[in-house]
Amino acid sequence: MSKYGRLATVEAAGKVRYGAITDKGFVDLTRPEWPSLREVVEAGALRRLVDEAANRPADFAEGEFTYAIPVPSPEKIICVGVNYPDRNEEYKDGQAAPSNPSLFPRFPRSFVGHGVPLTRPMVSPQLDYEGEVVLVIGKGGRHISEANALDHVAALTLCDEGTVRDWVRHAKFNVTQGKNFDGTGSIGPWLVPYVLEDQIADIRLTTRVNGEIRQDDRTSRMIFSFRKLINYISTFTTLVPGDVIVTGTPTGAGARFDPPIWLKPGDVIEVEAEGIGTLRNGVADEGVSQ
Amino acid sequence: MSKYGRLATVEAAGKVRYGAITDKGFVDLTRPEWPSLREVVEAGALRRLVDEAANRPADFAEGEFTYAIPVPSPEKIICVGVNYPDRNEEYKDGQAAPSNPSLFPRFPRSFVGHGVPLTRPMVSPQLDYEGEVVLVIGKGGRHISEANALDHVAALTLCDEGTVRDWVRHAKFNVTQGKNFDGTGSIGPWLVPYVLEDQIADIRLTTRVNGEIRQDDRTSRMIFSFRKLINYISTFTTLVPGDVIVTGTPTGAGARFDPPIWLKPGDVIEVEAEGIGTLRNGVADEGVSQ
Repeated sequence: MSKYGRLATVEAAGKVRYGAITDKGFVDLTRPEWPSLREVVEAGALRRLVDEAANRPADFAEGEFTYAIPVPSPEKIICVGVNYPDRNEEYKDGQAAPSNPSLFPRFPRSFVGHGVPLTRPMVSPQLDYEGEVVLVIGKGGRHISEANALDHVAALTLCDEGTVRDWVRHAKFNVTQGKNFDGTGSIGPWLVPYVLEDQIADIRLTTRVNGEIRQDDRTSRMIFSFRKLINYISTFTTLVPGDVIVTGTPTGAGARFDPPIWLKPGDVIEVEAEGIGTLRNGVADEGVSQ
Repeated sequence: MSKYGRLATVEAAGKVRYGAITDKGFVDLTRPEWPSLREVVEAGALRRLVDEAANRPADFAEGEFTYAIPVPSPEKIICVGVNYPDRNEEYKDGQAAPSNPSLFPRFPRSFVGHGVPLTRPMVSPQLDYEGEVVLVIGKGGRHISEANALDHVAALTLCDEGTVRDWVRHAKFNVTQGKNFDGTGSIGPWLVPYVLEDQIADIRLTTRVNGEIRQDDRTSRMIFSFRKLINYISTFTTLVPGDVIVTGTPTGAGARFDPPIWLKPGDVIEVEAEGIGTLRNGVADEGVSQ
């Protein structure tokens, strides 16, 4: 369990709630002045909530609640493409490492929470996984310097930035559609408050499918550092509290195998990072109720 | 004036309000049960508001209010690239017309309202215009057929899908950053309720810079029709009320001139479409207050 605490958005007893995940279960900390964890992040109150939950009994035990994505409606979810060295080499286009990060937005509805099955769409069997570390912005800003960048981070979480491969290049430009199928990715399980650069500077990030390690790298090897990403993104857009930056995936997605290995119902995908946790999801076909 | 009415979001007397634009000015129709025009769209109440405003005096005269983007926080703003024939040919890459539309999201903060200056960013002088017709979704849905697609449209408006050209290809993939600089585009001036296909099937769309016509085409020439766009987009994502689809621009953006002609402070850009109106914006440098 993270020593900095874990705050989640869940559905329990028919309502969306937020609170702390402890070894006893879910401690409900929802209050009217903060409708969601986005407002808690904005208020700078994540650690205060963690402290409040200490020594309190759980309101819902494990199994009595379902995880949702931690920040339900961020203003922006910005994902980074090709941010680990071997991944760039995999493109085999003879180009050196890129000089600026490739970015693409995802809509919140393209993600589900921890434990909720990912959706394999009816129009394509090419559902693929991408394990990533996620930054949640606390303090907004524009033209943020690399030196100050990490002061703007409120929390960490994980993402399976699930992708429908053939639809990534379905059109002449942009990966939009292959990255935005409803429910094809996941974010979670929870927010870990960000306190120290040690939490992210050189942590191991792994993705397993049915227990087999498919992606395994360290954040210290990222082409564009967390600091650089915040600096670069804030050059063109104002970051606001609750914004989500999905920082790129190591080599080893299913598309890279020969032949490619796509996800299918029955598979279990786990994205794990030291100090953050393990994000676990199954797979279900679109239109098939659970 | 559109015979179907005009509904706008404005700032007046220090508050954001929505209501009707009449020949007398702005008629305030804001009410608590619908916090914004997004909820009015969701309630299917646009035409009811237009009717309510008839014969009422204006609450604010022209000059006493400032336009904002009509739907302030849509869940999604999805833009279409390369959707008029000559534009595809301009790419001169020997490819036939694309088989699927290129799409990219924009964040609401990349747009300002009618009459508000566009922002030329400090990091690039390559601010360019793109005049476009905009659909606002009324009835949500997934896997919407082309036959039923227009039943899902609640309103029409216009967009200057302003673009920072050198940042469109700043990275290896995706146009994200060049399309998402704060305040570089505009949407408005207002929503015109959608009633009949005649309102969009074959209307003239023009963009003028300082009175000179730069873009001039008809929606009947779009590569991907309004029906096809709704059908295609809803293949991967669930459209919801208030979603905005920016449907592509005719040939003639500033980048196509030799040498290119970029926008600069002092310029006035007007996007006009028959039956919708004229969206007009100036240009100001980032960081220079008005």
